[in-house]
Amino acid sequence: MEESRLRALLGALQEGEVTLEETLQQLRALPFEELGFATLDHHRGLRQGFPEVIYCEGKTPEQTAQIAERLAARSNTLLGTRATLAHFEAARERLPDLQWHAGARALWLEREPGPKKPGIVVVCAGTSDLPVAEEAALTATLMGHEVQCFHDIGVAGLHRLLHRLPALQAATVIVAVAGMEGALPSVLAGLVAVPVIAVPTSVGYGASFGGLAALLAMLNACASGVAVVNIDNGFGAGYMAAMINGKSGAGGA
Amino acid sequence: MEESRLRALLGALQEGEVTLEETLQQLRALPFEELGFATLDHHRGLRQGFPEVIYCEGKTPEQTAQIAERLAARSNTLLGTRATLAHFEAARERLPDLQWHAGARALWLEREPGPKKPGIVVVCAGTSDLPVAEEAALTATLMGHEVQCFHDIGVAGLHRLLHRLPALQAATVIVAVAGMEGALPSVLAGLVAVPVIAVPTSVGYGASFGGLAALLAMLNACASGVAVVNIDNGFGAGYMAAMINGKSGAGGA
Amino acid sequence: MEESRLRALLGALQEGEVTLEETLQQLRALPFEELGFATLDHHRGLRQGFPEVIYCEGKTPEQTAQIAERLAARSNTLLGTRATLAHFEAARERLPDLQWHAGARALWLEREPGPKKPGIVVVCAGTSDLPVAEEAALTATLMGHEVQCFHDIGVAGLHRLLHRLPALQAATVIVAVAGMEGALPSVLAGLVAVPVIAVPTSVGYGASFGGLAALLAMLNACASGVAVVNIDNGFGAGYMAAMINGKSGAGGA
Amino acid sequence: MEESRLRALLGALQEGEVTLEETLQQLRALPFEELGFATLDHHRGLRQGFPEVIYCEGKTPEQTAQIAERLAARSNTLLGTRATLAHFEAARERLPDLQWHAGARALWLEREPGPKKPGIVVVCAGTSDLPVAEEAALTATLMGHEVQCFHDIGVAGLHRLLHRLPALQAATVIVAVAGMEGALPSVLAGLVAVPVIAVPTSVGYGASFGGLAALLAMLNACASGVAVVNIDNGFGAGYMAAMINGKSGAGGA
Amino acid sequence: MEESRLRALLGALQEGEVTLEETLQQLRALPFEELGFATLDHHRGLRQGFPEVIYCEGKTPEQTAQIAERLAARSNTLLGTRATLAHFEAARERLPDLQWHAGARALWLEREPGPKKPGIVVVCAGTSDLPVAEEAALTATLMGHEVQCFHDIGVAGLHRLLHRLPALQAATVIVAVAGMEGALPSVLAGLVAVPVIAVPTSVGYGASFGGLAALLAMLNACASGVAVVNIDNGFGAGYMAAMINGKSGAGGA
Amino acid sequence: MEESRLRALLGALQEGEVTLEETLQQLRALPFEELGFATLDHHRGLRQGFPEVIYCEGKTPEQTAQIAERLAARSNTLLGTRATLAHFEAARERLPDLQWHAGARALWLEREPGPKKPGIVVVCAGTSDLPVAEEAALTATLMGHEVQCFHDIGVAGLHRLLHRLPALQAATVIVAVAGMEGALPSVLAGLVAVPVIAVPTSVGYGASFGGLAALLAMLNACASGVAVVNIDNGFGAGYMAAMINGKSGAGGA
Amino acid sequence: MEESRLRALLGALQEGEVTLEETLQQLRALPFEELGFATLDHHRGLRQGFPEVIYCEGKTPEQTAQIAERLAARSNTLLGTRATLAHFEAARERLPDLQWHAGARALWLEREPGPKKPGIVVVCAGTSDLPVAEEAALTATLMGHEVQCFHDIGVAGLHRLLHRLPALQAATVIVAVAGMEGALPSVLAGLVAVPVIAVPTSVGYGASFGGLAALLAMLNACASGVAVVNIDNGFGAGYMAAMINGKSGAGGA
Amino acid sequence: MEESRLRALLGALQEGEVTLEETLQQLRALPFEELGFATLDHHRGLRQGFPEVIYCEGKTPEQTAQIAERLAARSNTLLGTRATLAHFEAARERLPDLQWHAGARALWLEREPGPKKPGIVVVCAGTSDLPVAEEAALTATLMGHEVQCFHDIGVAGLHRLLHRLPALQAATVIVAVAGMEGALPSVLAGLVAVPVIAVPTSVGYGASFGGLAALLAMLNACASGVAVVNIDNGFGAGYMAAMINGKSGAGGA
Repeated sequence: MEESRLRALLGALQEGEVTLEETLQQLRALPFEELGFATLDHHRGLRQGFPEVIYCEGKTPEQTAQIAERLAARSNTLLGTRATLAHFEAARERLPDLQWHAGARALWLEREPGPKKPGIVVVCAGTSDLPVAEEAALTATLMGHEVQCFHDIGVAGLHRLLHRLPALQAATVIVAVAGMEGALPSVLAGLVAVPVIAVPTSVGYGASFGGLAALLAMLNACASGVAVVNIDNGFGAGYMAAMINGKSGAGGA
Repeated sequence: MEESRLRALLGALQEGEVTLEETLQQLRALPFEELGFATLDHHRGLRQGFPEVIYCEGKTPEQTAQIAERLAARSNTLLGTRATLAHFEAARERLPDLQWHAGARALWLEREPGPKKPGIVVVCAGTSDLPVAEEAALTATLMGHEVQCFHDIGVAGLHRLLHRLPALQAATVIVAVAGMEGALPSVLAGLVAVPVIAVPTSVGYGASFGGLAALLAMLNACASGVAVVNIDNGFGAGYMAAMINGKSGAGGA
Repeated sequence: MEESRLRALLGALQEGEVTLEETLQQLRALPFEELGFATLDHHRGLRQGFPEVIYCEGKTPEQTAQIAERLAARSNTLLGTRATLAHFEAARERLPDLQWHAGARALWLEREPGPKKPGIVVVCAGTSDLPVAEEAALTATLMGHEVQCFHDIGVAGLHRLLHRLPALQAATVIVAVAGMEGALPSVLAGLVAVPVIAVPTSVGYGASFGGLAALLAMLNACASGVAVVNIDNGFGAGYMAAMINGKSGAGGA
Repeated sequence: MEESRLRALLGALQEGEVTLEETLQQLRALPFEELGFATLDHHRGLRQGFPEVIYCEGKTPEQTAQIAERLAARSNTLLGTRATLAHFEAARERLPDLQWHAGARALWLEREPGPKKPGIVVVCAGTSDLPVAEEAALTATLMGHEVQCFHDIGVAGLHRLLHRLPALQAATVIVAVAGMEGALPSVLAGLVAVPVIAVPTSVGYGASFGGLAALLAMLNACASGVAVVNIDNGFGAGYMAAMINGKSGAGGA
Repeated sequence: MEESRLRALLGALQEGEVTLEETLQQLRALPFEELGFATLDHHRGLRQGFPEVIYCEGKTPEQTAQIAERLAARSNTLLGTRATLAHFEAARERLPDLQWHAGARALWLEREPGPKKPGIVVVCAGTSDLPVAEEAALTATLMGHEVQCFHDIGVAGLHRLLHRLPALQAATVIVAVAGMEGALPSVLAGLVAVPVIAVPTSVGYGASFGGLAALLAMLNACASGVAVVNIDNGFGAGYMAAMINGKSGAGGA
Repeated sequence: MEESRLRALLGALQEGEVTLEETLQQLRALPFEELGFATLDHHRGLRQGFPEVIYCEGKTPEQTAQIAERLAARSNTLLGTRATLAHFEAARERLPDLQWHAGARALWLEREPGPKKPGIVVVCAGTSDLPVAEEAALTATLMGHEVQCFHDIGVAGLHRLLHRLPALQAATVIVAVAGMEGALPSVLAGLVAVPVIAVPTSVGYGASFGGLAALLAMLNACASGVAVVNIDNGFGAGYMAAMINGKSGAGGA
Repeated sequence: MEESRLRALLGALQEGEVTLEETLQQLRALPFEELGFATLDHHRGLRQGFPEVIYCEGKTPEQTAQIAERLAARSNTLLGTRATLAHFEAARERLPDLQWHAGARALWLEREPGPKKPGIVVVCAGTSDLPVAEEAALTATLMGHEVQCFHDIGVAGLHRLLHRLPALQAATVIVAVAGMEGALPSVLAGLVAVPVIAVPTSVGYGASFGGLAALLAMLNACASGVAVVNIDNGFGAGYMAAMINGKSGAGGA
Repeated sequence: MEESRLRALLGALQEGEVTLEETLQQLRALPFEELGFATLDHHRGLRQGFPEVIYCEGKTPEQTAQIAERLAARSNTLLGTRATLAHFEAARERLPDLQWHAGARALWLEREPGPKKPGIVVVCAGTSDLPVAEEAALTATLMGHEVQCFHDIGVAGLHRLLHRLPALQAATVIVAVAGMEGALPSVLAGLVAVPVIAVPTSVGYGASFGGLAALLAMLNACASGVAVVNIDNGFGAGYMAAMINGKSGAGGA
């Protein structure tokens, strides 16, 4: 639309219908976003494979279904996080091939799955942290990555963690999910030379203050190579991991 | 500079040296900020009369002096907040006409003061809140406004506040500065039909937690017509008041 | 009642039944609120067009209905915020012309709408912030202002915001509603020379701590010309914007 | 029981069956609480008129009923706070003369009401603060005091407060209940020479953080003569006021 | 001045120069603060015996000295809190009879001490709490009360507290000063039937967070009859105690 | 399994099928957890008597039942905390001898109870703290200890606490459970020479902030010999007490 | 003194000068603390070996010296924590045999050291945590225990911790000192069957918030067998460990 | 050392001097860290190029100098953060080729700089954030990366940020440093498809609460692809960026 306006202007200049000064004048007067897309589009093009994600919490099933349908019309991949079964069922009526991931509490669609790039490992400290870990894994998978998961390897039973060291050391990036005291990323980052995306969870009670304890602990990790996302933000961690792995050289080695 | 690049491109199109498609291609490839200034400049032009303010805290006297000199070369008005006498003295060596406002802890310059627009009243609750109030008043003054000040009219001595009601009710906008329990904006907004910019101060001790008590109180003001700026941020309040008063009809009525 | 007492006193002075000193003595002894209304009424008169607002949360539908009926008997305009459908339905039984605004969760009435004064723009960062934005817009509208709304122009998609720059720069006052990291007011205030009323929302999770993250961000906005109201307080922001716009010169220019 | 042991010991000393040293030895060995009640009883005697209060929250109706029955067997006065109708109904089955105070959410009994001592005034800022204010008033009433109540005299409408000044200045002690920004006690204490017990309430939203804003404001009251109880603690404020008024000279003058 | 205006008006009415209606009209138009002092003065008169207190922190010695001199010209009693020796010495140059209380960090003057009313007891938990306790005691003393002090009777050595029970039970009001876990007021209020003004201090480290731990503990005291002032606010507690004791019947009984 | 691999390797060395260097090489290459169990097993052996505890909150009844069945197959003792009746009933279908402890909200099993070691005392301040106290007592009992309980001995009624001093002084370790101001551990530790494990509870309202007040108070206990566990963490306190008592010499004396 | 009063009373009973009832009456009237010492003394007797500790922070060198001298007159052991060299030097003038422990920032004296009981291990995560660890070790040593110390074994270099496992597993009680994310106690408690006293330190910056991050992490330790003391409270941890080890059977086994 | 013990054991098995069972027995008894290094060493080998970093804060110049000397004996690269000039000068006496980076407040050494890998961009919002940004840049540089820096491109002047878009979009990883409201990472991540490591700084005042406002804002970034490190932790961000860039394919493309 905006492009046609621009074409017409330049055509008129070419045809001598407007002077150079007039053209310049009009170019200046155009709201810059009309030209700005030149830059912005390039950026959005890079993201093309992964459209806007639906954050379902606070949306009605019907609203979710409408958005899902609209997005699926433009993309082969779809992700809705923090969804309930009701969200899923409403959306599936419009998108019969829609999938439900109970663990990650997500609805998703991947119509033309391509090859997945290995390199991401997702670990979590306890079984209560699983939903967050699975949200991270699903996100990265839909973004084109192969994700290896190790569950229930918290620091209270260190041998379970040490048992997985070879696989952890071979990763390109690790997502470490933990609630309570949130010590897993610190211990992990001390054992591997791999960037660790730490996800605090709200698992815990009393002085965990909804995940604050784990969040602060992860921000203060004494080992280097740790960065932190929001409490319970499995999606954000999976997204970040996918971006890092996407930049990596072949094979995550 | 960038404009010349654009001119050359359009000239080439005019001359038939490039095709319309090529021109479009190059326009897209131009970083948008090169054209974007068309819009942005208009905006900065509006602000012309009031250049960037120097936040002196954390800067050395010498750094401050250099910045002040550079700014004063382009503008007749200058403001440096959170300054010490050392900052001032270093800057005055380069700008002999620089002024010092001890109360507001500010260095300033106004080479061609124009007429001031009335409408702003600054009140403060206690004498300890004075520096913040004076910073607000000085800021608004330098931005072209006439500021009326009432000091020490806290809610513990209500009659002092009531005594000033006529002037307060005649204002276009009021800046209310208070520490401790920060009740002044609530009381004030209940008495006048004028927007109140509330400034919590860090005056107080113990459970004032550096101004947090006053900040929360002001955010929770039961009276309508109150908005809040950061703790001790006299500059921000004065700036906001000046913007509101600048938009007002004649005489603040 | 009190006036009659005063009349009697002055009549007695006139008639010589009491001395001037005795009259003075009695005037002093009168509780000042008996005379004070002279001043206070003037103030309330200014507000006449907009009666007390009903904050419905925590009130029963029946209580709300009674208050609404009483207020509507004295005023042509009515606003009840944080209402549920039950509040509305109970009140509509008494006020058949009562309106319901689902988006703003408000019940309202405007029997004799006058001309609206342009100048207010309400923007919000995400669709989840809509209820708060609509409460702001409805409030300002009922107070006599024309409100222009731009939704879903958060900083994560900057081009959407830049697209609206001309309208934003033409406003007299902007209400900017945002949750999560609350960056919208900062970015906005850097682009326009218009006072920005920032409204943090409780949209977000984890370390948003019920809107605290957005609140703190807005209080610390690095751009000048921002003042903040309470979390989710769309009413307060709309009220403040209406006061500022009400003071403005014609056309918001 | 313990007294009988003591009697036996002293009897044996009297009869020469034990020596003075042996008696002293045994007295020392007695756990001191066995004698200590001498002092403690005096204290509890002072409180006799007001037995243990039942905090109903977290108790089942049946538990509450049992405790109420047991207490009412020993006392003519009974108070159960934070009660629901279910608590009341269960307890009334055992105590047919039990009363229900809907406003204060309390169950109570006063079988032989004596004369009430005047001197206590309870004020509250908004109608939402009423339950807390009524809990305070009921508590003080059951402890033998006459309580005068003024509701809805918040600082946003100062004239309503000023209207009540004579009654407020004549009190022995004032309980001031307020949520939101909690400014009422500050304003009040600046107008009267009477001790003010401030009760912050959880009324408010967003940055009121469950009453924290009001609590901090009251602790930082710039006026002297204010002390604070816990958020929503009407009972505690009424109890404190009753203790102060109980110590006062005749008539609260 | 204002009185003369009023006199003139009433004289004119008396003389028939103005009508009763005109007089009424003009009375209404007078800013109410001009008559309002009638009420307010009565209030200030009640306070006469204890003039404004100088909060020296943040004032220069010279400023303090000037204020002290001005206050001492109108009153026989003077109190300056949070003072340093420098404050005192500057003020003593103007007021040679000024006193220095090193423990309370206060400068004071009591030119015509009258009889003191007994009834106040000040206790503190540890020797580090002494300055706050002494500020409370000095304040109450200057307000006309006899204060009994018990130091270092914290709950960790309960026998020291129990040893003072008779004196504590005989008081009209107790000021209890404690830092760290702030348990003293709870324990005390469980042992006596006397109102307790609790003062948290910033004594402690780590998780005392500048007195927050003690403050929260005191607000949550499980015993009834406790109200709290700001952290380290000995002055406020002494003032409150003096107000309560001033209202009490003879002898604190 | 891993042991058999190790045996085969060593057998091959013994038989001369591999060289010493090859064996060493392979030993190095074995993931260390395969040998590490040598050390870890010893540790887990010490814990054998008390298998993993089921934290039921957030688990479905069916999940809980499955875990309980699996654990009970390997151990004679079983504990599930934070359980509901639904959890219990689902699990009892698989484990008919499973027990339900309503007070501690726990499901448990102890098929071959051995002799219990005396030395642990659990005290709590109020009846609302009982569930946490009972969880502590049940945990320690199942770990092989005899637990003596004293309920409702809060500091507001000190004589109840003093009455229990002899039993308290004879303990090896005391678990002290308290909400509100959390003063019990301080008072207790000042009276006995026994380590005190303090458990803050979320009992309280307003400024107790979900147990934060009690937690901070206990961390700041002015008496020595106190250590603190998480809010409401009766299990953790009982476990810690059992470990301490398990190390103690005979009879807790 | 009080004993003589008691003796006289009992003598009079013996002599028939008072009746049994009169004696009983007088016994009741005696303030209980006069007899109470019988119980309390027994308690203090248990503590005899370790007198009151001097918390030097906030005391002048002279005050410290006086207290030290007075305590040393009654005891062979002395400990002053949070001391400076100035405190030490002032005290040594009165106590020439006083010792200085630079690492623990403590002054101490142990005139007749007896045999030390083994069983306590103190570990710390980083060298910056050393002062707190040494305060813990010195405290326990002076209380009669042999303390083994392992420094700099934080979780970022897990092999250093694992290297010390045999010694850690053989302990009766472990004091674990850590700042930053405070993960050490969690990891440790998962590896040993020994009670762990966790000490958070204020080491760290930014979001460690003066040790809050470590404190919360330790309170939320996912491993059982951890209890926590105040931030930087090495003395408290050493004291607690000494009490636990003091109760233990021979050899810490 | 330990290897020799193992060799001897296996040799004895080979020679038939011990049985297979005895060998197995002894292997079990070996502390696992003696074998565990096989795995751990491999890990440390990966890190060889970048030795332990010296955190100078809280260390004396002499301590710093000793550690620096020891580390420099084993490595060609050295980094000491949070250093003062005094730290540097003490260390330079032992290491004459030591360098000082005033901006980053760091001492460093890179004896054999190799080729640097491009891909990292460090941006900061204001000049006050420079020290943190420079610490990040220096860290990544010493780890073998080429770092491009853009300073003072905060969101209040969006055009400065947009101007740098091409370079930002070409990066492999971006470190974004900002104080105050911390909006830069959100805005940035919305414009580029590159992982962003966000560093909140303590720049700001009042309600920035030492960087908390920026920290929370960054954790709640509405744009995907952001992870956060501790407040002011330039080192941690530089380290994380280096790890990510180190994994990347050639040229950061």
